[in-house]
Amino acid sequence: MKHLFIYTLVLVSFSGFAQMTGFTPTNQAKQEKLEAAFKTQQSSERFKKHLTTMCSVPHTAGTPENEKVRDYIAETMRKAGLQVEVFPHDIYMPKGPGEISVELVQPIRQPLNNREYILQEDKYSGHPLITPGWNAYSGSGDVTAEVVYANYGRKEDFEQLKAMGVSVQGKIVLARYGGNFRGYKAKHAQAAGAAGVIIYTDPADNGYTKGITFPEGSQSSDFTIQRGSLLTVDFTGDPLTPFEPALPLDGPKKVKRSDVKDVDLHKIPVTPLPWGSAVEILKRMTGKGVPAGWQGGLPLAYRLEGGSELKVRLNVKQEKGFVRTYQIVGTLTGSEFPDEWVISGCHYDAWSFGATDPNSGTAMLLTLSESLGEMAKQGQRPKRTLKICHWDVEEYGVIGSTEWAEQLRDELSTKAVAYMNYDAAVSGKIFGASSSPSLKKLLIEATKTVQYPDSNNSTVYQHWIGQKGPRNGSTANIGGSAPVAVADEPTIGNLGGGSDHIAFYMHLGIPSLGGGTGGPTLYHSQYDDLFFYEKFVDPTYKMGPMVEQVVGTLSLRLANADVLPFDVVRYATDLNTHLQTVEKAIKAYKPDFTVNNLLASVADLKKNAEAYEATIKTQLATDKLDKTKAAALNKELRNLEKSFLDPKGMAYGAWYRSLYASSDPYSGYASWMLPAYMYEASLKSSANLPDLEARHQKAIKTLNDKILAMSQQLVPANGTGSLGGGKN
Amino acid sequence: MKHLFIYTLVLVSFSGFAQMTGFTPTNQAKQEKLEAAFKTQQSSERFKKHLTTMCSVPHTAGTPENEKVRDYIAETMRKAGLQVEVFPHDIYMPKGPGEISVELVQPIRQPLNNREYILQEDKYSGHPLITPGWNAYSGSGDVTAEVVYANYGRKEDFEQLKAMGVSVQGKIVLARYGGNFRGYKAKHAQAAGAAGVIIYTDPADNGYTKGITFPEGSQSSDFTIQRGSLLTVDFTGDPLTPFEPALPLDGPKKVKRSDVKDVDLHKIPVTPLPWGSAVEILKRMTGKGVPAGWQGGLPLAYRLEGGSELKVRLNVKQEKGFVRTYQIVGTLTGSEFPDEWVISGCHYDAWSFGATDPNSGTAMLLTLSESLGEMAKQGQRPKRTLKICHWDVEEYGVIGSTEWAEQLRDELSTKAVAYMNYDAAVSGKIFGASSSPSLKKLLIEATKTVQYPDSNNSTVYQHWIGQKGPRNGSTANIGGSAPVAVADEPTIGNLGGGSDHIAFYMHLGIPSLGGGTGGPTLYHSQYDDLFFYEKFVDPTYKMGPMVEQVVGTLSLRLANADVLPFDVVRYATDLNTHLQTVEKAIKAYKPDFTVNNLLASVADLKKNAEAYEATIKTQLATDKLDKTKAAALNKELRNLEKSFLDPKGMAYGAWYRSLYASSDPYSGYASWMLPAYMYEASLKSSANLPDLEARHQKAIKTLNDKILAMSQQLVPANGTGSLGGGKN
Repeated sequence: MKHLFIYTLVLVSFSGFAQMTGFTPTNQAKQEKLEAAFKTQQSSERFKKHLTTMCSVPHTAGTPENEKVRDYIAETMRKAGLQVEVFPHDIYMPKGPGEISVELVQPIRQPLNNREYILQEDKYSGHPLITPGWNAYSGSGDVTAEVVYANYGRKEDFEQLKAMGVSVQGKIVLARYGGNFRGYKAKHAQAAGAAGVIIYTDPADNGYTKGITFPEGSQSSDFTIQRGSLLTVDFTGDPLTPFEPALPLDGPKKVKRSDVKDVDLHKIPVTPLPWGSAVEILKRMTGKGVPAGWQGGLPLAYRLEGGSELKVRLNVKQEKGFVRTYQIVGTLTGSEFPDEWVISGCHYDAWSFGATDPNSGTAMLLTLSESLGEMAKQGQRPKRTLKICHWDVEEYGVIGSTEWAEQLRDELSTKAVAYMNYDAAVSGKIFGASSSPSLKKLLIEATKTVQYPDSNNSTVYQHWIGQKGPRNGSTANIGGSAPVAVADEPTIGNLGGGSDHIAFYMHLGIPSLGGGTGGPTLYHSQYDDLFFYEKFVDPTYKMGPMVEQVVGTLSLRLANADVLPFDVVRYATDLNTHLQTVEKAIKAYKPDFTVNNLLASVADLKKNAEAYEATIKTQLATDKLDKTKAAALNKELRNLEKSFLDPKGMAYGAWYRSLYASSDPYSGYASWMLPAYMYEASLKSSANLPDLEARHQKAIKTLNDKILAMSQQLVPANGTGSLGGGKN
Repeated sequence: MKHLFIYTLVLVSFSGFAQMTGFTPTNQAKQEKLEAAFKTQQSSERFKKHLTTMCSVPHTAGTPENEKVRDYIAETMRKAGLQVEVFPHDIYMPKGPGEISVELVQPIRQPLNNREYILQEDKYSGHPLITPGWNAYSGSGDVTAEVVYANYGRKEDFEQLKAMGVSVQGKIVLARYGGNFRGYKAKHAQAAGAAGVIIYTDPADNGYTKGITFPEGSQSSDFTIQRGSLLTVDFTGDPLTPFEPALPLDGPKKVKRSDVKDVDLHKIPVTPLPWGSAVEILKRMTGKGVPAGWQGGLPLAYRLEGGSELKVRLNVKQEKGFVRTYQIVGTLTGSEFPDEWVISGCHYDAWSFGATDPNSGTAMLLTLSESLGEMAKQGQRPKRTLKICHWDVEEYGVIGSTEWAEQLRDELSTKAVAYMNYDAAVSGKIFGASSSPSLKKLLIEATKTVQYPDSNNSTVYQHWIGQKGPRNGSTANIGGSAPVAVADEPTIGNLGGGSDHIAFYMHLGIPSLGGGTGGPTLYHSQYDDLFFYEKFVDPTYKMGPMVEQVVGTLSLRLANADVLPFDVVRYATDLNTHLQTVEKAIKAYKPDFTVNNLLASVADLKKNAEAYEATIKTQLATDKLDKTKAAALNKELRNLEKSFLDPKGMAYGAWYRSLYASSDPYSGYASWMLPAYMYEASLKSSANLPDLEARHQKAIKTLNDKILAMSQQLVPANGTGSLGGGKN
């Protein structure tokens, strides 16, 4: 589902890097040669072939069409020379859109359209397998009721309705997309007693107010519908198996599953509409005008209530049950460190054709498999193991990747170097990325080595730093953590919710990043197809190879570095900012609160991290490190991020175990940095502050101890061979 | 036409004033008694009667209906005991809307509606004398052409069109209301070669995006039309007689008139449309999408060009000629100082019924005539002369008041104490005011003595200071002078363009203010009628009496003060801020520019003004001032504002003679403080800066010298009688 790459302005000053982070001079020279060879491998034609093959039909999770995409992916990676494993999981999920209808009952009877148009110019638009608009994990029900307009259906919108004396009890709530994860619109509405929810795309947020509409332009039309999941349980993944993998029901190993009736799934019917249908309701409303900020872009004064003369019927019958899904993992086993895994991933299930979301990422990863497979065949196998993963059933709630991560929990905990998520990674011309602290420097270094197409020799990095602000909007308006502004660095976001990095990063403590290109999109509509892609995203298919070069460079550096190229100082830099954000948020209601103790520990951490980095830099530059020490260091480096794992997890969901980062529990989209504190602040509570300080101190101390231990490792030893084999 | 009370956040700290500014203790006691008596005179019934009598029919300038309003005003003031004079002026102006039509020619033929709807609930809405929408001083022409959308039709919009390669040569320009004075839309379009201009009200600026529309709500509907003048000559008033009064052609004194062909009147046809008609054009446009900020509120993506398939016909035949107009002046001659004039005014011509604009102000002034007349009959005649003026033909370009001011130039220059403009002064529930510096303190003192209706005994002042920001929008977006923020003072605006204070303030240098209440309005539409007034403005007619009390208090204090209650320190305070604004504007292109020399003079001015104020305050409090000295002081006080009159006038129009304040020559609406500098800055020119500094230095020095001379007058003398007759 990929949504909202959530950015933080983190601009770190760093000077030119003659030295490639993590490499001895000799190995840097080899790596440079290897990367040069890698960059001759890309092909727009192969990228286009993969994309067009996978996106010729709609392929939602659980359908035969998605199994064909699965087989194509597996076959392509196999042909490329990767070992391919397919991991089946049985997920409790919708078996499709089911039965859906929305109609006016009073003052006139009129069915409301919930399907997109068949357009002459878009040959994909009439495909018989295209579904009506629908929301996964809707409740089932058939209700006829008055309507209440609830703006974005955010927590604060329902609070404001209540304060204005407008009850949604027994009413159908009409809420517009935007401002939060759609599942929370349903959750808040149900909590307030609503009988059902209609979620529509308002032209103030997407559509003619932003530019010319589809198909002439790339903006939402009156007939485009945003599909999407509503799942809002307090963990990520299959709703019946938190913490555990949803192994096949008929497999050898049985997993304990929750009883469906004990799981907090939505009970009321919920469905999306295009504004061409929503306006039929809105224009017949007769209640009081809306408060400031609630007016949308339709040509009428928005009102809070429909009044008793206006009745709408909403009928949803959505069958759920166990559906077999498949995670596909291609492996290129490392020549020297097979048990150190550099993991990339993107889901392959789509809401319709999935041209940008997700399969531009899928196609890019397939070409990467081919490029790296080809090099391996020529004897240029990476030192560490590369895993290229294609996830199923992401669109219904980031499920496939989560089940796989839970299944391989123990192995991942010792072996994973990093997880890199490339959901919809080639969706436009604008490069952007989000990252955990330790990978930010690597990201910057990699983008400095790749050319941006048709740009007169400028690099992806130069293009990136030329972009202003977040790619997909800021999280400020949905309560995300404040940006960290550092000079001379492109905007690098904080990882929020909404894609397959969640389990790796927020549950297992594996350093993660997400990146790629963005641009115009008809998000989760049937028009995310190849017609749109070739007209508005990239007619020449040059962006796929470009992104592959960035992704390949990142993978190969992580795979071949003598010492993992993690920026350990960055933990301190970013923590400093995030702690100040927390202090500000809590001071607002508890003026004597400070994070001074934690800042002091971070200052100490920073000093030690800088000492470590200075030493390792010198030792690598002079090739003074031996293999044993390097291996020990790399083991410790793989463990750094886990310093933030906390056994209690978050108060809003114990599955979220990272004290460093989480999606937020209110919008589901915002990135919360130091989320345990952010949650406390959101409740204006002080009760847990002493406990939180202790837990965060412990995490910082653990990280600090690990870094001190690494520095200890670096005390010069005699006699052992160098890493690079160089002479220096 | 009253538009945009333009505010500056000027918040001056002043403590409680046991002492009434300008009065000895004895006379203060008398004045307090007098004001208490005055405040028993108001009557909602009389206010309502005057308003409903005048607003029962449309009465544009030059029509028999407007002559009936004239006669009603004159008769009412006569009955109240005022001497009434009627000053005829022959103005070169439109003889009515003439012939107007707009139609689609291609791709379909369709006439476009340019009349407002007749509504069941609004009994005024079907009056046979209601005109179609029209713009005074349009050119005449019948053109059929392609269309170009020019956003607000501002200088920068036409520049942007040119930069985007869009030519308006031979095209019909479609521009939305807002952002500038409508006449400049036509002027810029004509300069760029356009064949005609259609100006429409966009719902992004007025209409459903702001709330529920008329007649259910008070926002513009798809059928409301803003009428208005287009006159943009480089002076104010009758276009053929700058500097001179447009005396009757058949009168004894002949005035030299310009030849019409030498006057820069618009040549191309221009007419307004409601958005219900404009959308028929906009939705058929096929060109490129608009840049950021140009999208309006209609449900379509706005485009720059209509393309060759879309042709619109615009036909305007507007006859112009000499029309007799009438300025009505009621006088209550002062008992002690008949040659010192305290002037109030409001126009009486209206675009249709004129319930709020202007006749709420007219009705309020008529009740004031009655209240003061009644008191005079009872022996409580003001010491200075009060003149209550009712201006004709303001709506076509602030013409009647200007001709009168030019006619009485010499007398006004010696006799006028202040001009107070009350155009549309009772248009809602929100009090606001704009003022020249010396009257700000008086304005605040007066509002502290008047109760705000139904408010649990709070004063107008308390209500006013509780309002945040400008009443009718800020001028920031149309290039006005930056606000001066001072603590503990309500928002007091700078006087800009758009009403009858212009000649008094900007041409003759008479201290001026404008004030009253505002609220919802269907500006210049036929629905500014009594139905609207009673539904949305003031159903109980309580605001008229309230405003009358403020206006009466201001008038009576100016009329009866021993020493004119001008705040002379405020010149320095405000100059300081305005000079800094100028410095910032010029520094942007000339970094070494400073206003330090002028600031030094202002500092000196401030010191001297403070010394004067301290002395006068003491001498009044102790009743040490004699009548001769007071008369000399008052003469000097009447001259202070004229220190800013500059014989060269402004570079953009020599008629604008005040170096202190002007409307701006680009939008016509914004208030420019230190306008000669603002104009220089707008051209990014440095050539005239030395000359400007010299001229401003001279003005400040003149003001300073006058204040020093006043202080000199205050050197204690012996023997003469006190002002108040008190014993102390």
